[in-house]
Amino acid sequence: MKLATLHDGSRDGQLVVVSRDLASAHLASHIAGTLRQVMDDWNFLSPQLEDLYATLNGGKARHAFPFDSRACLAPLPRAWLWAPQRAAAGGAPARVAGHVDAVAAAAGLQASAADAVSGRPDGLVPPLLARSDVFSRPGAPAPAMWGATAWLQLQPAVLTGDVAAGADADTALDGVRLLLLAATWWDERGVAGTAFAPVACTPDEAGRAWHGGRLSLPLLPGPQGAAVPAGPAPAVGQDFGPVLAALARQQGLAAGSLVGGPAVVVWPQGELENETGRHPPAGPGAPLQVQVQVQVLGSDGASLFGLLDLPTPAPAPAPVPLPADDATPTAAMSHAADPPAP
Amino acid sequence: MKLATLHDGSRDGQLVVVSRDLASAHLASHIAGTLRQVMDDWNFLSPQLEDLYATLNGGKARHAFPFDSRACLAPLPRAWLWAPQRAAAGGAPARVAGHVDAVAAAAGLQASAADAVSGRPDGLVPPLLARSDVFSRPGAPAPAMWGATAWLQLQPAVLTGDVAAGADADTALDGVRLLLLAATWWDERGVAGTAFAPVACTPDEAGRAWHGGRLSLPLLPGPQGAAVPAGPAPAVGQDFGPVLAALARQQGLAAGSLVGGPAVVVWPQGELENETGRHPPAGPGAPLQVQVQVQVLGSDGASLFGLLDLPTPAPAPAPVPLPADDATPTAAMSHAADPPAP
Repeated sequence: MKLATLHDGSRDGQLVVVSRDLASAHLASHIAGTLRQVMDDWNFLSPQLEDLYATLNGGKARHAFPFDSRACLAPLPRAWLWAPQRAAAGGAPARVAGHVDAVAAAAGLQASAADAVSGRPDGLVPPLLARSDVFSRPGAPAPAMWGATAWLQLQPAVLTGDVAAGADADTALDGVRLLLLAATWWDERGVAGTAFAPVACTPDEAGRAWHGGRLSLPLLPGPQGAAVPAGPAPAVGQDFGPVLAALARQQGLAAGSLVGGPAVVVWPQGELENETGRHPPAGPGAPLQVQVQVQVLGSDGASLFGLLDLPTPAPAPAPVPLPADDATPTAAMSHAADPPAP
Repeated sequence: MKLATLHDGSRDGQLVVVSRDLASAHLASHIAGTLRQVMDDWNFLSPQLEDLYATLNGGKARHAFPFDSRACLAPLPRAWLWAPQRAAAGGAPARVAGHVDAVAAAAGLQASAADAVSGRPDGLVPPLLARSDVFSRPGAPAPAMWGATAWLQLQPAVLTGDVAAGADADTALDGVRLLLLAATWWDERGVAGTAFAPVACTPDEAGRAWHGGRLSLPLLPGPQGAAVPAGPAPAVGQDFGPVLAALARQQGLAAGSLVGGPAVVVWPQGELENETGRHPPAGPGAPLQVQVQVQVLGSDGASLFGLLDLPTPAPAPAPVPLPADDATPTAAMSHAADPPAP
């Protein structure tokens, strides 16, 4: 089953079922108005959506219309939780790994960067959370980047049902409801914004390429993304099980949580690498300068997620002057950060 | 206006208007079923809720019933964004400040801990985000704590409407819709869980104690919280303006975002301190051992948020064994965290 969300002026948009070939769509409003509602009540609503999907693919849906991904929001336009993963290779992510070791040292504990990046249960640092109050529309301008170095991460993501606290990796994988393709813009401050390809699909759409919590399919360039990827297409396949189990360990995961898989990095000039890649040539001061278009094709040749189309980021506006008032918390905390000796 | 959310078996609960003295309540279902809906459409719905509030306080609401905070969920049981602040004083938060400087050093940049804690716009590290997919019920058992050291943070929080990207501090403060009282459980891994006092109120309920983005009222002990706070009651007043502006700088803030103010720390034995306090005596290995009950009284003597009642955390269960399979992403990332030289 493939689902998308049309932009209708509301915050959560309008859920549609999309045909397997992405050629046509059908409003799902008689079943559920939004994907958020579906995630809250998956067992009751998803069979009805599957029925509509079968009818649509059979050419017998009465009110089908052509599917236009430019009319879409992200499949889930806002979420209760978005836990992307940092990529583990290359210059900037290697800096992130450095952060983690420093954090561990500051806390007087041992933790490897790998623990933190993967959200390993005994790691010191919990999986990274990013803003989920609003995701970019597919094809919308990228956010302004403030940092000296900007990079993109492309990663498969899963939208979960409820996962019980303490679930092991296999049990947690049973909670995967939908697969998505995500892009996060990064600078030194962290995630500056997130976009998703327009279509979410159930794992069965990927056939045997979804196995054991891995989506073993390559990222392919879109029609206008000839320069990206250069060289062999990195796979987006990694195992979601341990990541979901780590997130669910203490609190569980609530239905409608978005979790990212290990990421492919796009460097400022458009070079792609996966976690086995080498250091990139780009250094500080090189904001992302290319349009990126990628997609993932299923074994039947149909696009799983539609085209993930990412224009170049807008230049950062001039910095906002800071208040100089000593009574602000910033000033108060400057003192607090240098506390008196006990 | 005071609002709360009754536990009715649904994820978002049932919105009620609560009388100023917290003695009675009235279902708001003829106006809006949930606080989430109200946040999405504040300008249209909140005047209707204010009318009901006036009727309820006047003793003329037709279907009023006694208000029982034990029947409540958090006022907003799940949110699109929850950005608590780290406390800036004392042992464990000072470690956090150390983290930030280490992170800055690892990135080859200068950033003071104060920048990161306050979310100062030119700081390196963005404001901390915590899980918002489900908040604890008032009075529910605290989450299991995994770290060697556990502490609580108590902080006022605001629930915002839409705040435009690039808004300055004063403009961002115009986006404050409701005030809440939050508690976050911390260990070395970060925030282990969040609870809220059962009632959210509009800023006018605080009278002149809400001014310039500060809630200048002390935290007072609850009836069973005699040991907490010991000594003078710390104020919970700090300026939300710069924090909101920092969060809104790049992406704005979407309606329904929860943002925490500077926090008061509760140490394992129940000692409270605010950001002007000294190092605590508690060291590693001392999990939180006290029940905490606090409230905030308005100038008319009525409780603004009801009682924030926090039982002691449950002991941590035995650790889950980790998979030893070298093909897992954890193993792959161990290599990636030690990349080849360029």
